[in-house]
Amino acid sequence: MRTLLKNGNIINVFLDQIMESDILIEDDRIIGLGSYNEEDADEMEDITGKYVCPGFIDGHVHIESSMLSPEEFVRVCLPHGTTTVIADPHEIANVAGINGIGYMIEATEHVPMGVYFMVPSCVPATQFDESGAVLTSYEIQSFFHHPRILGLGEMMNYPGVIFKDEDVLSKIDITKKYGMITNGHAPMLSGHDLDRYIAAGIYDDHECSTIEEAREKMQKGQWIMIRQGTAARNLDALIDLFDEPYNRRCMLVTDDKHPADLLQHGHIDNIIRLAASKGKSVLAGIRMATLQAAQHFGLKEIGAIAPGYVANLLILDDLVNVQIRDVYYKGKLVVENGMTHPFQTKKVRGDFWKAVRNSFYLKALTAESFHIKPEEGDCRVIRVIPKQLLTKEEILPLNFIESNGIDVSKDILKIAVVERHMDSGHIGLGFIIGMGLREGAIASSVSHDSHNLIVAGCNEEDMALAGNCVREMGGGLAVVRNGQIISAMALPIGGLMGKKSAAEMARQNQEIREAVAEIGSAEGIDPFMNLAFVSLPVIPDLKLTTFGLVDVNKQELVPLFVK
Amino acid sequence: MRTLLKNGNIINVFLDQIMESDILIEDDRIIGLGSYNEEDADEMEDITGKYVCPGFIDGHVHIESSMLSPEEFVRVCLPHGTTTVIADPHEIANVAGINGIGYMIEATEHVPMGVYFMVPSCVPATQFDESGAVLTSYEIQSFFHHPRILGLGEMMNYPGVIFKDEDVLSKIDITKKYGMITNGHAPMLSGHDLDRYIAAGIYDDHECSTIEEAREKMQKGQWIMIRQGTAARNLDALIDLFDEPYNRRCMLVTDDKHPADLLQHGHIDNIIRLAASKGKSVLAGIRMATLQAAQHFGLKEIGAIAPGYVANLLILDDLVNVQIRDVYYKGKLVVENGMTHPFQTKKVRGDFWKAVRNSFYLKALTAESFHIKPEEGDCRVIRVIPKQLLTKEEILPLNFIESNGIDVSKDILKIAVVERHMDSGHIGLGFIIGMGLREGAIASSVSHDSHNLIVAGCNEEDMALAGNCVREMGGGLAVVRNGQIISAMALPIGGLMGKKSAAEMARQNQEIREAVAEIGSAEGIDPFMNLAFVSLPVIPDLKLTTFGLVDVNKQELVPLFVK
Repeated sequence: MRTLLKNGNIINVFLDQIMESDILIEDDRIIGLGSYNEEDADEMEDITGKYVCPGFIDGHVHIESSMLSPEEFVRVCLPHGTTTVIADPHEIANVAGINGIGYMIEATEHVPMGVYFMVPSCVPATQFDESGAVLTSYEIQSFFHHPRILGLGEMMNYPGVIFKDEDVLSKIDITKKYGMITNGHAPMLSGHDLDRYIAAGIYDDHECSTIEEAREKMQKGQWIMIRQGTAARNLDALIDLFDEPYNRRCMLVTDDKHPADLLQHGHIDNIIRLAASKGKSVLAGIRMATLQAAQHFGLKEIGAIAPGYVANLLILDDLVNVQIRDVYYKGKLVVENGMTHPFQTKKVRGDFWKAVRNSFYLKALTAESFHIKPEEGDCRVIRVIPKQLLTKEEILPLNFIESNGIDVSKDILKIAVVERHMDSGHIGLGFIIGMGLREGAIASSVSHDSHNLIVAGCNEEDMALAGNCVREMGGGLAVVRNGQIISAMALPIGGLMGKKSAAEMARQNQEIREAVAEIGSAEGIDPFMNLAFVSLPVIPDLKLTTFGLVDVNKQELVPLFVK
Repeated sequence: MRTLLKNGNIINVFLDQIMESDILIEDDRIIGLGSYNEEDADEMEDITGKYVCPGFIDGHVHIESSMLSPEEFVRVCLPHGTTTVIADPHEIANVAGINGIGYMIEATEHVPMGVYFMVPSCVPATQFDESGAVLTSYEIQSFFHHPRILGLGEMMNYPGVIFKDEDVLSKIDITKKYGMITNGHAPMLSGHDLDRYIAAGIYDDHECSTIEEAREKMQKGQWIMIRQGTAARNLDALIDLFDEPYNRRCMLVTDDKHPADLLQHGHIDNIIRLAASKGKSVLAGIRMATLQAAQHFGLKEIGAIAPGYVANLLILDDLVNVQIRDVYYKGKLVVENGMTHPFQTKKVRGDFWKAVRNSFYLKALTAESFHIKPEEGDCRVIRVIPKQLLTKEEILPLNFIESNGIDVSKDILKIAVVERHMDSGHIGLGFIIGMGLREGAIASSVSHDSHNLIVAGCNEEDMALAGNCVREMGGGLAVVRNGQIISAMALPIGGLMGKKSAAEMARQNQEIREAVAEIGSAEGIDPFMNLAFVSLPVIPDLKLTTFGLVDVNKQELVPLFVK
């Protein structure tokens, strides 16, 4: 089957040029450039006046953060020109281990997008994390023969790398032995510590938040992934990396993006558009998002329009605004006039599906589940800080006689992290200040990185109701007021992803955020977002896990009561 | 073992910058940049005011063309800053097959240079070639597990690629399956034929002789190797590839370089120096010769000065003139003040050594060996053309009654290609016009690509003597006059490489060329060089192989006598 795209303006990413040329496609490949006739092909499309560029590559994304099933994620991102993603299934792996990764691989087997994976390096994320699974270097290695696995996922445990933890280094070394790469994750690391981290064999980073940080990392050999997601938005700070020579060592990534954000603003196309609006070169943006990402990941047959390359192509009406009209994936038209054509997906096999679908193992909760037996002394309380994932520790006297320690008038709420993978009965209990809820409770199974059930509320009855609501959905978000569930969003795939369409998921997400606003939230606080990181004991200062409070700076469990 | 290079001006090839920085080396690796103290290392070298750049990489070289043993080649190239070569052992493979390649690998096992190999793709070069060995895709594949094999050597058989010869494509496809690359070789190919060639999976070329040719190949995805060797010198024509954005897709190579040229002018350093003398950027030249070559060949740990990279470093007194003072290979000082330190080499194992050392199997020649039984009609005579490897066919009446067809007064000499690998007795006989010899004979075992014994002379006795002289040396070059050997140069390793030092080989090479001049050579003709290509039936028009005359354009054997 031969398709001829006639009279295009082709973006040549090798030489940053726009060339007038036809493109002859045979099956999934580009086989010719230059001038061809209608007789040379079975089908011809006249694209006079239009631009053609290679399909975009997202070099680092957690599909789970979109809350969409992998298939739906593909459906949403395709019209934005993304034909390849390198996904890190870190979240689902913390819930369902190798079966979770297996699910992601299977679910994307037949989709019209090249979905590659990095094997998560840090499952569980820390010693205080009670995750649903563990990945040792043995399990990691078992994936390295799969054609869509490209290496080891972001190595967040940088102290482990710097201080040469044997287990951490063995994961990196095995990856190297397979000729693969290890993704970096080392926010703010610099100087000799950065040297030690890189020297272990980690040659990219997506956590740069200043241009100085990026420059140092580039000088030392790292590729920089310019990240623009829903929460972490580094484009403004890193905008000058779009200039030469920096743009030669960069690519574009989203990391984490919510469904409404994907629908409204787009994906990699949005980053190029934003940069263009600040006067930066669209051609450089396209090169970063195509050829360079492909080079970094060793994907030799994608990322450019040239003979022998896979025909992943975008037809653009307009270059400056990156207006994508049609998308070809492996030579087939998969997006036409901005609409994704329906596609068949693969039925996921039983072992994988069961592991992600039945990921909640937890007895029903009662108000008593959240009781704290009072002891002598004041309490350590977690203070959330507007617009930050950092927390502070406050030592406060609490009133256990009348209200089990809760004091809504002072914004002191109860918080719980309930182990939900194997019904161990472990529950971490504590108090949180600064959330702004005035009544009711909220609960969520999206709580990094172990994704246990996290619940915060103004009274224990509503907390139990919210928690049970999430439990009964097999994962999700819930908002409760006065014994009534006022909003709920199901995330039955691993407690992280929904089964509905992106539009429906975006609508539900909007609705539940409005419901939270009704029961109250403080200025600069996004209750579900802040809650999702209260259980991650790598961000200072005080966090809560299923084992109780963790002093992150000391990396040790600390008691609730201070005598 | 830790070495500290203190206060260098480091060439940063990621960002085309010169940075003031120390370099901390541990064993074979760079482990730190920035500022260190004497106590951080076991040894310290103050390099204040000096420049440090990554060791150079020659992306395409036939070591055999230097006429030096691999060990001696390393000894000569090291002080010129070459710490890595990607060698194509095409010549020795045509003589000794897998044992020849094995010899090259073994001989370079312990040398202080990273010597990588591409497996020759075209052994024998054509169907008319009676080479000493054959490499099928089975043999080729057998090398792909070796850590110093990077892919398939230059695919000269471009008609085979374009017309989808099954055998040719299977070699390329197997290479791809191993994640490796195939080197290109397609002089002047353009348009749809070039597309077909590239689409098979061939993404580099070192045969460009014009900037237009290079631009088309780059637009279509090929990396361009800018070649500057002894015979083929493309730098002048391609000098503008040193500019942006072209320099981003280029590397520097020598292909074929003679010993005197290496000694006098250098290696990759010479190319950068020449370009600088034409006003081009030294930093761009260094980047092409380091990081980019490494990227193309998938060598992730060399080509830059960064944490985790192998410590292959050059200390330069002067950047503009690329004056190399010291060379570090894998963290060890191997060249000091321009002098290569002595190094131990590996004793090559018996099977490999015998195959290359005893490569001559041929009974002694006599004057009768060169007799041509006269037939009716005129003869096809090969005309050599000054400064070209092309030949022309001339149909001439020859005098067989008095002089066996030879007529020195008309510059018509006898020529023979004698099969010398397995003493088959095959001998191709004919006549050559335009060489300019006035007496005696010359013989050589360097005759592309099969490296049979080629002999040309003014009488059959001297031809036999010259041929036997080469035979007795086990390969080499010889000049004979009036029954006397007036000069000889032994190339006992496969009939291609000598065992002497580079200085001695250069001296002998000079001496033998002077000896040829004594017996006569025409303007613009280098008798040994022209002779070396008279037996290669891929360059038009008329060539001679062990089977007889070949009409290259028709690709068929033709008789000597035309009735």
